[in-house]
Amino acid sequence: MNTFGERFRLTDFGETHGTGIGGVVDGCPAGLPLDVAFVQRELDRRSLTQYDTESTGQDNTRREPDTVRLVSGLYEGMTTGAPIAFFIDNKDVKIVEENNNVLKPSHASFVLKEKFGHHCNEQGGRFSARQTACRVVGGAIAKLFLQQYHIDIKAVAKEIASADSHNTAGAIVECVASHVPAGLGEPTYGGLDARLAAAMLSIPACKGFEVGEGFEAARMTGSQYNDLQTEGYAFRTNHDGGIQAGISNGQNIRFRLAFKPIPSLPIDQPSLDFQGNPTLYKGHLRNDKSVVPRVLPVVEAMAALVLADAILLHNPNLKSETCSKHLF
Amino acid sequence: MNTFGERFRLTDFGETHGTGIGGVVDGCPAGLPLDVAFVQRELDRRSLTQYDTESTGQDNTRREPDTVRLVSGLYEGMTTGAPIAFFIDNKDVKIVEENNNVLKPSHASFVLKEKFGHHCNEQGGRFSARQTACRVVGGAIAKLFLQQYHIDIKAVAKEIASADSHNTAGAIVECVASHVPAGLGEPTYGGLDARLAAAMLSIPACKGFEVGEGFEAARMTGSQYNDLQTEGYAFRTNHDGGIQAGISNGQNIRFRLAFKPIPSLPIDQPSLDFQGNPTLYKGHLRNDKSVVPRVLPVVEAMAALVLADAILLHNPNLKSETCSKHLF
Amino acid sequence: MNTFGERFRLTDFGETHGTGIGGVVDGCPAGLPLDVAFVQRELDRRSLTQYDTESTGQDNTRREPDTVRLVSGLYEGMTTGAPIAFFIDNKDVKIVEENNNVLKPSHASFVLKEKFGHHCNEQGGRFSARQTACRVVGGAIAKLFLQQYHIDIKAVAKEIASADSHNTAGAIVECVASHVPAGLGEPTYGGLDARLAAAMLSIPACKGFEVGEGFEAARMTGSQYNDLQTEGYAFRTNHDGGIQAGISNGQNIRFRLAFKPIPSLPIDQPSLDFQGNPTLYKGHLRNDKSVVPRVLPVVEAMAALVLADAILLHNPNLKSETCSKHLF
Amino acid sequence: MNTFGERFRLTDFGETHGTGIGGVVDGCPAGLPLDVAFVQRELDRRSLTQYDTESTGQDNTRREPDTVRLVSGLYEGMTTGAPIAFFIDNKDVKIVEENNNVLKPSHASFVLKEKFGHHCNEQGGRFSARQTACRVVGGAIAKLFLQQYHIDIKAVAKEIASADSHNTAGAIVECVASHVPAGLGEPTYGGLDARLAAAMLSIPACKGFEVGEGFEAARMTGSQYNDLQTEGYAFRTNHDGGIQAGISNGQNIRFRLAFKPIPSLPIDQPSLDFQGNPTLYKGHLRNDKSVVPRVLPVVEAMAALVLADAILLHNPNLKSETCSKHLF
Repeated sequence: MNTFGERFRLTDFGETHGTGIGGVVDGCPAGLPLDVAFVQRELDRRSLTQYDTESTGQDNTRREPDTVRLVSGLYEGMTTGAPIAFFIDNKDVKIVEENNNVLKPSHASFVLKEKFGHHCNEQGGRFSARQTACRVVGGAIAKLFLQQYHIDIKAVAKEIASADSHNTAGAIVECVASHVPAGLGEPTYGGLDARLAAAMLSIPACKGFEVGEGFEAARMTGSQYNDLQTEGYAFRTNHDGGIQAGISNGQNIRFRLAFKPIPSLPIDQPSLDFQGNPTLYKGHLRNDKSVVPRVLPVVEAMAALVLADAILLHNPNLKSETCSKHLF
Repeated sequence: MNTFGERFRLTDFGETHGTGIGGVVDGCPAGLPLDVAFVQRELDRRSLTQYDTESTGQDNTRREPDTVRLVSGLYEGMTTGAPIAFFIDNKDVKIVEENNNVLKPSHASFVLKEKFGHHCNEQGGRFSARQTACRVVGGAIAKLFLQQYHIDIKAVAKEIASADSHNTAGAIVECVASHVPAGLGEPTYGGLDARLAAAMLSIPACKGFEVGEGFEAARMTGSQYNDLQTEGYAFRTNHDGGIQAGISNGQNIRFRLAFKPIPSLPIDQPSLDFQGNPTLYKGHLRNDKSVVPRVLPVVEAMAALVLADAILLHNPNLKSETCSKHLF
Repeated sequence: MNTFGERFRLTDFGETHGTGIGGVVDGCPAGLPLDVAFVQRELDRRSLTQYDTESTGQDNTRREPDTVRLVSGLYEGMTTGAPIAFFIDNKDVKIVEENNNVLKPSHASFVLKEKFGHHCNEQGGRFSARQTACRVVGGAIAKLFLQQYHIDIKAVAKEIASADSHNTAGAIVECVASHVPAGLGEPTYGGLDARLAAAMLSIPACKGFEVGEGFEAARMTGSQYNDLQTEGYAFRTNHDGGIQAGISNGQNIRFRLAFKPIPSLPIDQPSLDFQGNPTLYKGHLRNDKSVVPRVLPVVEAMAALVLADAILLHNPNLKSETCSKHLF
Repeated sequence: MNTFGERFRLTDFGETHGTGIGGVVDGCPAGLPLDVAFVQRELDRRSLTQYDTESTGQDNTRREPDTVRLVSGLYEGMTTGAPIAFFIDNKDVKIVEENNNVLKPSHASFVLKEKFGHHCNEQGGRFSARQTACRVVGGAIAKLFLQQYHIDIKAVAKEIASADSHNTAGAIVECVASHVPAGLGEPTYGGLDARLAAAMLSIPACKGFEVGEGFEAARMTGSQYNDLQTEGYAFRTNHDGGIQAGISNGQNIRFRLAFKPIPSLPIDQPSLDFQGNPTLYKGHLRNDKSVVPRVLPVVEAMAALVLADAILLHNPNLKSETCSKHLF
């Protein structure tokens, strides 16, 4: 299913090798000024390799000059409450034929063959990292919505494994959402941490999620860990990372993600073709060395989509004290 | 929302201090022999403190002799396809009055007050670890369904932090699902890893999820990490933990969870009351020291619910090669 | 799927011939005084045959003295926001064995055999009219929620076909919801009329739904039909039945339903057994002659569930003029 | 919410006065040959006024030469399982300014003002009949999927009210789906009749739905009505219209719809402006007199979407007799 979210929803489409990619944001409230230049700048962050290319070996000549077009849901620059569709043309399409019949190691080809019975090339474009450009556009619209509440989201690289010149590397990314009001998140199965975890694990190459102290919490005692509160309900510490019992507590929401090395290597890898014969999956010199820095706006986008959804799922006027009063 | 799953769904209810807890499993296919004794044994695993009490200080006199009653959806011991409701009576209800008006540190009281405007005591029972007994029952039914496919799920404690005699400790749990067929999981936003992550983060005290190499993957190179395949599509390694591009690849699904220390301590903790005045949250000597071992059947249950759902979401007869043929 | 609603949700379970039936209402806001006596009175309306027995031949000695027990989600008589589970014991269970292997004409047996491959007797209990008792309980809770907004719902029989002493009859029911505020209902596919239609067609034996002028509208001209507005936006007429473009307009919501004759006749009917051999489906003298009056609280209950859901789906504080302000 | 369906899903977007309209079909199985010419022909059926213009006064010079472009989800003419996006450019956009600030009688303007607090003109384009072009495209793809099962759907006008030269008229439409296999539809709340009813009531101007005998059933006795079965489970009659207990029984699915007169009249109508002042809503000579014939492909499209969804929701291999066998 290619839809993310319940009330603030992104449905996206498109393949790397088709005419373009795009999506529909449904549920964005009316009356929001939609800053198209901001959306484009977010998209630019995903395309450009602004990271230090010397240390990573990344090839900054590889550019996808993506341009987003918003095609519905706006009137005089404001959202109308109707679905906001957008489109990004594919440029410079080069179908690499040489690996067409070969399983790409640690990628989608084998599992798609098993699930759907056909080649990666046909549907596989959906599994390309390019699909994340749609997430960035949807997330940028969510960010504009969140700006109304002064919510800010920022992801940074914490660790990037070193890689020699013919290899790729994994990375750890940390993301912080600040000024998130207390009370967001649904109890039991719809917790904000559960939704964030699902959102992040849906990003290609993400293999781990931890919030607050995360795996380090497993090595702490309760008296070290507990976030005690003082006058005015202020917290002394934030070991829980801003989420308790699945609900935001007003502190910064802080989580970390593990990304595996990009499976496309600059060297040939032994693999099999779709008929089961041993062969080589050819290496490409033009691929990124790491998901960082391109993944950073994607992480922020997914966090923004989760938080925008959480605000719309939260009915602040349906608290117990107002339940006996008119809503209208 | 108190429902988990899309096609194999658990809805649960009940509070610690009410007459009982229970749930409804909807979507379990008809014709499955439902071994009630197995369900009860799974529930027993959650109740008993089988762990070495000397080293943890856990009080094994604390027992909840839970008995599950199945009240619908069965005919002569077989599922009928109708919803399976179950009920667990609360026994030995002792409302601890002393902390009634005090925020429990690093727990649900403050966020519930912020979200709903009322005390933890009223709804808070839903946030008790006791709610996880319902997950174990739902998960046991899912396990019986999965046994038809020979799928087995096993969780074990990997690390338990040491705690002196007046403290609690965090833990790391590893879970392996074996004999999972390739092809389970939905592309893009409905990946099996994303669903497992959300399921696990919804367990009280869970602060982290990693699959396969997880955070260690972030420190590897692509040539170390990639799971290459050999004759018969056999994998040489399983760094990806059985899931690639969100879809199972036929290898063991292996993931690890971080649990924070239980926030209820055997010592008093400084806190605030619901009016904002500084006070103490009184310690209880009878609480568990760690979520382990009680959490192990809960982890397995959530994994079983996710996998049962994934099987029902997967339409193996709608592969491309059969699309042009009759389904009926 | 045995769940109705998105935000105010009823999940129900249980069979005629099991130990009982029941359900879970999830999403009811906290702080609502839950009048259990009212819920029981609504349930009594469904059980008693208050209708004139002379004219219909209905047997008013047939009683199901149902008693509802609320088992969770309440604290000191108020809802807590947690799921509200309820249970109704089956009494006086008499399994009629004689028709066990015979398809019941115009009922669920044949289609269940085709869909699930097993007998009506096993799952068929779910398809008994008795399941509607759960709807009445869920609907009664929804009515209590709606009373906070002064919304009132009333169904009455408009036409009951006459039936000789060995037959059953169809009926037309009209339902009016008054004091419904304007603005409820989602655009495009989530209209209030679409949701009401689905709710009503899900009631056993319902074969038609019309809102406002309904089928009569098909025979009118635009100048006769259009609901013109005058000073203060007051409507001169209500041909649209209170819903325009899927959204309530503040007038009474008025719709009518067609119910087919109850398929259980007091005479034998030619049918087939599950092996395909011609046989008779034996008649029962104790069955109702018409779905009226028992169906009236069921119709009201489904309307109440739809309207309660519509209120929770509607975010009145997310209008365009408040979008730039804080929600919290 | 602008998404229809659960497993075969249409999300659509676009306004009359924007650059175009379009949608995304998600969930269509891979391997289906997608006949683009067929999709275009279906769309042509909605655009052209093929009906006898003399008797209705319809202006057949009014044409919208819509052309659909499919932009994703295809490879060499076959579906890949990825989302299928489509786009229809708006041509010949003429914004009629004169009624901009006036409530359109019996239409969406008043309820949108009440719900969202802004003018119809901004979001109102979503409520234009033009949105139904997206339904026709989505439905055409569903029809191609249904053709694999030989399912055919045909809607015809049964009654069209007569209208003098300055008026509009209502209509009754009948739709028949043939070769639908028995067993489609979910029990309890997800019945095929309930889903069809919701789908049809979501079509602009639809005010009533009846299946089989519908409202006439209310005037029949059980012995007249019941659909008895004979050798080979063949039905002697089809009063139930192909659906029993919410599940298809293998007979033709037959339902009828009531459409109100189009609210746009060729004469001025008294109304109010958005400030509450009495004024006139100006008449347009170029509007259609009746929803027929343009609505016929829309009705068929919605029926096709419901049936395609029902097939994907139905798991024929999860019958009781196969439950103990491998699915894979």
